[in-house]
Amino acid sequence: MRRALELAANGPATGPNPRVGCVLLDASGQFLAEGWHRGAGTPHAEVDALARLSAGAARGATAVVTLEPCNHTGRTGPCALALIDAGVARVVYAVADPGPVSGGGADRLRSHGVDVVGGLLADEVGPFLADWLVAARLGRPFVTLKWASSLDGRAAAADGTSRWITGPEARQDVHRRRSAADAILVGTGTVLADDPALTARDADGQLLPAQPVPVVIGARGIPVGAAVRGHPHSPLIFATHDLLAVLGELHRSGIRHAFIEGGPTLASAFVAAGLVDEYLVYLAPTLLGGGRLALGDIGVAGIDEQRRLTIEHYVRLGEDLLVVARPR
Amino acid sequence: MRRALELAANGPATGPNPRVGCVLLDASGQFLAEGWHRGAGTPHAEVDALARLSAGAARGATAVVTLEPCNHTGRTGPCALALIDAGVARVVYAVADPGPVSGGGADRLRSHGVDVVGGLLADEVGPFLADWLVAARLGRPFVTLKWASSLDGRAAAADGTSRWITGPEARQDVHRRRSAADAILVGTGTVLADDPALTARDADGQLLPAQPVPVVIGARGIPVGAAVRGHPHSPLIFATHDLLAVLGELHRSGIRHAFIEGGPTLASAFVAAGLVDEYLVYLAPTLLGGGRLALGDIGVAGIDEQRRLTIEHYVRLGEDLLVVARPR
Repeated sequence: MRRALELAANGPATGPNPRVGCVLLDASGQFLAEGWHRGAGTPHAEVDALARLSAGAARGATAVVTLEPCNHTGRTGPCALALIDAGVARVVYAVADPGPVSGGGADRLRSHGVDVVGGLLADEVGPFLADWLVAARLGRPFVTLKWASSLDGRAAAADGTSRWITGPEARQDVHRRRSAADAILVGTGTVLADDPALTARDADGQLLPAQPVPVVIGARGIPVGAAVRGHPHSPLIFATHDLLAVLGELHRSGIRHAFIEGGPTLASAFVAAGLVDEYLVYLAPTLLGGGRLALGDIGVAGIDEQRRLTIEHYVRLGEDLLVVARPR
Repeated sequence: MRRALELAANGPATGPNPRVGCVLLDASGQFLAEGWHRGAGTPHAEVDALARLSAGAARGATAVVTLEPCNHTGRTGPCALALIDAGVARVVYAVADPGPVSGGGADRLRSHGVDVVGGLLADEVGPFLADWLVAARLGRPFVTLKWASSLDGRAAAADGTSRWITGPEARQDVHRRRSAADAILVGTGTVLADDPALTARDADGQLLPAQPVPVVIGARGIPVGAAVRGHPHSPLIFATHDLLAVLGELHRSGIRHAFIEGGPTLASAFVAAGLVDEYLVYLAPTLLGGGRLALGDIGVAGIDEQRRLTIEHYVRLGEDLLVVARPR
């Protein structure tokens, strides 16, 4: 299973599908073949491994796979069926597939007489697939909310100026994380006020190889000359305030990880709606005072309603601190 | 000098006087005696060391002392004169005394033919005396400003409730630091709203051995039954908004380290006046939104006027983070 997890890590970090690895062993436990998933539209890990064997060579074999084999016909057929057809006798997987459509592979395998064991090394594979599992379970992208503020919680000075609160190391960290997400979400207010490019760039301003899809939420229109219109991906525009509907639509279009960078209004709306799975708070060692807060009203009236988080990780980036937290 | 610094650390952490250690060596560099200062009204380190020798035994000796010998007659006479009278031939010190009254000891020694060398191990002794040196240079106490807030910079929920934002480890850290300060300052607003005891307590609520003097600033009166009136030290009350005048008065009464815990109004006033030497920001992993900010207006209009800090230290305390910062 540890080898299968290594194989899984070869897959792409973005895109709609999970990163999965598979190792095939014969009845005596000897290695037969291995495979991994290379992204949407390409064979799943199990099929990739089976394809490396001649017909009949997998009869009686054991498939060790990081995720429960899928039970779903998309651009490729269900892996559960491929394993049954190949005569695999035993399937060992780490993490169950929580998807309402793709799940159920283990039951299907068992109903065809395959011996199935789940949960092996689940404590290592689970965190590896955490974002995808949240998206599969909830039917919406995993949501990361990022903001940068002064130590007193301000996103800008009283007159709105904010360049730069955080230093180059923190800003570069944001670009790396943007590049690892499928989509970057902002409100129209941010587009109109800041005209951001919403691209992921390196320290020299060059585009990184992977770019998130820019998504703009809000009723106001986007100017013809807006920088976001020059993004490598055409922006998706949602003239609605129904965030759950937006996320559902993004999920249907294959987006599994959404990165919210949208200014206090959008950020507060996501927090208030309970739709944030991960917080990235970049804290600059500076004080601003005034009314330009990184987060506005989030519907908390008294301390009993506070939104408690757990700090997962914190690190110094140049002069700044990054705090990574999740809802408790 | 390293031995002298060890001796200095035996002194009390609070009180008006610096912690100083002294080692006396004979002309051949052999140990003669050592001493340290035990707090206001007791002999200074040099005099403490000289007192351990018989009359005349220090003639031609070298005094190694962490701070420039004082030139000032307080409850004890000037150390510079004591060293001259004892016939000490050479004085080696680490850090110069910046005090307008106590300084000048080195010049006085030199004018009496004593060989004087300053700056030895100053990079270790300087930080050890940092707070006292600031107080001596500025003629006011070293000022620590503490606040506790949510990750979005709020000190309380919208309805004012705030118990507890931070956890027991953070609160205990605050009590330890209160105990190491000479005075704890709040505004009358905090006294009227929260009725704090302003004592330093252990985890069981018992008083720690050293208690800061409670200081209340503001024009409104303090109720007869206020908890602060039960403090082991009588509260000092200043019906003024002139913070520099308050600090000057506190310095004259022997207070060298003031700990500000006074709510957003007092905190913002100290920041705006540029009177904070050290920030302690306890950040709880929670979100509150709303308008109850830990820091209010601090007179910053645009980003060019931001009050940049340097993070000296950060540490996790239970679920919370403590960030220690100083003005840049």
